[in-house]
Amino acid sequence: MTRSSLSEPVRLAVDCMGGDHGPGVTLPACRSFLDKHPEAELILVGQPEALTAAAGWPRCRVVAASEVVAMDDPVEVALRRKRDSSMRVALQQLKAEGEGQVPPAHACVSAGNTGALMAVARYLLKTLDGIDRPAIATVVPNQTGRFTTVLDLGANVDCTAEHLLQFALMGSALVAAVEGNENPSVGLLNIGEEVIKGNETIKQAGELLRAAGAAGRLNFHGNVEGNDIYKGTTDLVVCDGFVGNVMLKTSEGLATMLAAFIKEEFSRSLLTKAAALVALPVLNAFRRRVDHRRFNGAALLGLRGLVFKSHGSADAFAFEQALARAYDAARNRLLDRVHDRIVATLQAKAGDGGDNAANSVAQAA
Amino acid sequence: MTRSSLSEPVRLAVDCMGGDHGPGVTLPACRSFLDKHPEAELILVGQPEALTAAAGWPRCRVVAASEVVAMDDPVEVALRRKRDSSMRVALQQLKAEGEGQVPPAHACVSAGNTGALMAVARYLLKTLDGIDRPAIATVVPNQTGRFTTVLDLGANVDCTAEHLLQFALMGSALVAAVEGNENPSVGLLNIGEEVIKGNETIKQAGELLRAAGAAGRLNFHGNVEGNDIYKGTTDLVVCDGFVGNVMLKTSEGLATMLAAFIKEEFSRSLLTKAAALVALPVLNAFRRRVDHRRFNGAALLGLRGLVFKSHGSADAFAFEQALARAYDAARNRLLDRVHDRIVATLQAKAGDGGDNAANSVAQAA
Repeated sequence: MTRSSLSEPVRLAVDCMGGDHGPGVTLPACRSFLDKHPEAELILVGQPEALTAAAGWPRCRVVAASEVVAMDDPVEVALRRKRDSSMRVALQQLKAEGEGQVPPAHACVSAGNTGALMAVARYLLKTLDGIDRPAIATVVPNQTGRFTTVLDLGANVDCTAEHLLQFALMGSALVAAVEGNENPSVGLLNIGEEVIKGNETIKQAGELLRAAGAAGRLNFHGNVEGNDIYKGTTDLVVCDGFVGNVMLKTSEGLATMLAAFIKEEFSRSLLTKAAALVALPVLNAFRRRVDHRRFNGAALLGLRGLVFKSHGSADAFAFEQALARAYDAARNRLLDRVHDRIVATLQAKAGDGGDNAANSVAQAA
Repeated sequence: MTRSSLSEPVRLAVDCMGGDHGPGVTLPACRSFLDKHPEAELILVGQPEALTAAAGWPRCRVVAASEVVAMDDPVEVALRRKRDSSMRVALQQLKAEGEGQVPPAHACVSAGNTGALMAVARYLLKTLDGIDRPAIATVVPNQTGRFTTVLDLGANVDCTAEHLLQFALMGSALVAAVEGNENPSVGLLNIGEEVIKGNETIKQAGELLRAAGAAGRLNFHGNVEGNDIYKGTTDLVVCDGFVGNVMLKTSEGLATMLAAFIKEEFSRSLLTKAAALVALPVLNAFRRRVDHRRFNGAALLGLRGLVFKSHGSADAFAFEQALARAYDAARNRLLDRVHDRIVATLQAKAGDGGDNAANSVAQAA
């Protein structure tokens, strides 16, 4: 089902204290975002004395939170001790109850620590009916010049075939909402293209995905391998969180090493330094093209609220991209899209002689 | 235990028909290898009419095999139907029995299809006592200018903690034999450095590795993440074959994409093409540094014989590197080194109240 976009202005709740740099990065990003999105509203959450720079900004209000979740705080601290943290208060803005006449935010953005953000978001928002576990999705550039969306990236270390199917459905909704691609192709990350490849979980997931594809509930391409992520063979790649995390961090490590090698080679002598000067515009164009700041903003999917996670080390440019992704997702009703796809799948399951969960979910919506 | 090197000339059995290009690549590689290794001997296996170019080469003899395992042959075909394949006959050269007075080869090299090579090697050679499953190990360059050895790379899609310990022991022996690093540091690939990270198998593997490290049987660093592979945090990185395969293929995909982007940027206009000309020597130096052909030659570890697998698409330069790696491994008694480490671990286990397997292995050696 294609969803129309939101009719009211998009409101984002921003954890202004999260990340390595806090308000020094989040505030300039918010300011620039407001300028570029004249219909957006922001709820800036944090210690008021740290947010005075935002006084008088248009379409913007400050909500006070006295505490900050540190980047190395254990999940327990974020969850049980720091109950007035900017992260938690920002997430609370997604909920209507107890907020009086103030309308809730449509999405929340934080650069705080991932484990804490996922735990607090899950505790406060709960998962959608039909979703066992939330997942983290991000995009990487691919050789076609477009992007590959990958999930899960670390929220789930042991996944069942059913979880992988849920990731595929949620990821498809994300690509539709944020990239404007209503029928994204889905690849199942494996160690070969043949259906007999992989462990039992992967083979079962392949069967579930093929069935969902045959029923028209998603656009399943089949198995893909690691190199297909950057080749752009499919719009979406689904894997468990362990594999996804290793894949993403390996990519970061390789890119860092190659950049260091290029720099070393160009710094080797006076001659190579002169060559570097000549090549600089080209090298900069290349760098812009693969600049990971442009792809900042991972989606936490499967919750009863839209949450986007910025890299902790993001600068203002990168944090603004995360705000923009959250804005696009909210405006294009990502939450409703995920809900629709899950309900359709649950209904199909119920039709196969399963339980009545789908109907109750559909009625509750 | 440090092993002295082999006292007799190293003999390699070469599957001359394997790979995408067959003798057109393997023979020139063998010729160049013989020139650079004046003490090496080669057993060239293949269809005699395809190997006539080698007639009269020094330290070299041809062993006929009438069939060829194609790159897309199913494992079953290689194993049961093509019983006179160059791959199989080359592997048979590792065994003394039935060979009459001809001494067996110390290692075998093939560019044939990986699944078939592993299956036939396992069938003919069997695994070492104390090894449940063979593994595939390769090296990738890292930021320190040295190499990271990674295993497993696809032979085992479901691994237990015990398997991961065996991979660490075999990999340590490989690094000692081929890189000359007698006490390589070992990292366990995980999604975080903390011991509480990862699934149950990984946590158990961490405990086994820590215990082996405490007992001085290997040099365990702890958990590492994907980026540590290219950072060079440890000499060896251990993971299950699914994760290893995804990691390696993702790296290939990313490197291919980045190379394509650099090429595109330098081809954009007359000006950028001129810049490319100036930068060419530097770009070539960079390319040589990350040239994967230099790292060609994956080791199949855990078998009662040394088997090295070249990339199927290897050119003569790359195939020669695989020959050189196999030569180094054989000369530095990799098989004995793996055996020593496995026996020491089995003995320690037996000493903990385990079975008597270690003693019988030690006696059989």
